[in-house]
Amino acid sequence: MKLLITSGGTSEKIDQVRSITNHSTGKLGALIAESFLAQGDQVTLVTTQSAVKPAAHPNLTIQIIENVQDLLETMQPLVKTHGVLIHSMAVSDYMPIYMTGFEQITASQDLTEFLNKTNDQGKISSKDEYQVLFLKQTPKIISQVKKWNPNIRLIGFKLLVGVSKEELLTVARASLIKNKAEIIVANDLYDISNNQHHAFLVKQDSVIEATTKEEIAQLLLTHIHTKDNL
Amino acid sequence: MKLLITSGGTSEKIDQVRSITNHSTGKLGALIAESFLAQGDQVTLVTTQSAVKPAAHPNLTIQIIENVQDLLETMQPLVKTHGVLIHSMAVSDYMPIYMTGFEQITASQDLTEFLNKTNDQGKISSKDEYQVLFLKQTPKIISQVKKWNPNIRLIGFKLLVGVSKEELLTVARASLIKNKAEIIVANDLYDISNNQHHAFLVKQDSVIEATTKEEIAQLLLTHIHTKDNL
Repeated sequence: MKLLITSGGTSEKIDQVRSITNHSTGKLGALIAESFLAQGDQVTLVTTQSAVKPAAHPNLTIQIIENVQDLLETMQPLVKTHGVLIHSMAVSDYMPIYMTGFEQITASQDLTEFLNKTNDQGKISSKDEYQVLFLKQTPKIISQVKKWNPNIRLIGFKLLVGVSKEELLTVARASLIKNKAEIIVANDLYDISNNQHHAFLVKQDSVIEATTKEEIAQLLLTHIHTKDNL
Repeated sequence: MKLLITSGGTSEKIDQVRSITNHSTGKLGALIAESFLAQGDQVTLVTTQSAVKPAAHPNLTIQIIENVQDLLETMQPLVKTHGVLIHSMAVSDYMPIYMTGFEQITASQDLTEFLNKTNDQGKISSKDEYQVLFLKQTPKIISQVKKWNPNIRLIGFKLLVGVSKEELLTVARASLIKNKAEIIVANDLYDISNNQHHAFLVKQDSVIEATTKEEIAQLLLTHIHTKDNL
């Protein structure tokens, strides 16, 4: 079986020396990749420079990306040539457009003017006590996956922070339906530590609970291989 | 001799899942630390989780920090107990205060209201196409060093991007005088790669040019030890 797995977190440049980064160690994605490789599957891993990588393996190909635009361009052809996508990467929701001093924005008659500006300095400098950064939504990659390849089996992830179990499951079910995923792995940052990773594997008609990264990887392996053998 | 060295780049949290990070591998700081350790000096290295670290050494102590506030609290006592500070860390100039949808800011009568707000969600969510992040200047640590310890010997760094040699030297000289440093190591991001690191060591009455990280480390070692033996 040929799996496409994403891991780590994207970074969006503000300028040449600063970026907004989505935190993600890449540990879970690496563990999932290793589990499938151990079963004889082929894995293409799309990840970031700083993410934890799986051990080298003859059936493992790694592609490094930095930002959402890279990810989009890298994933579109890969989604078409893989049977399964496990999309555990933390993808930036917004990317910087323009940064300026607070004085400039208070002096403006029409704030929309800043949405079309770009910084031309390599390192944005300012003497202002306050600065303002304008950001724009990034393309939602997960919602395009089934358009690129209607037959791909999609496992998505949803990370929230400090919400109730009820809210977490509601948001995960909405993502499951909207993105036509088989499973959304829903987790809360406050329930993740080095040794523990509490998650709900939300399917159309059931929810399975896991408490470690190893257990999440094992459950995904079983799900993908069982359904595949039907 | 007891040296305090800083390396890597600080990160400022936007929320629990996103940060603004100043890029710096920490390689130069690690190399400088190793050069002094090899000469029998004691080194305290203040650095970040992701920075390249020197090889372990009995005379090396490492302290990990994340943001400017951590750095301030960690450095203040250390500056008082060390004879030399080599401050190569890339320190964030601004830190996030508040993030909101663009619609909210266009609807506001007084934009200063956002400078006193804080986000109370662990993960800031927004359905807006555009978002706006307000940032505030961080305390300038290098300008406080001589107040904490008037006798410490200070080596500062200045990184600019895509400027002329003239501008780079002018900015470095201003920093040298303002911060009462012995040397400002001035460099341009476009002249730094893995194998090459073009820098000017700007002193009160001279400028020395270096082309590799090893050469910068060697020049700093010679400067500190020579003056020390006078």
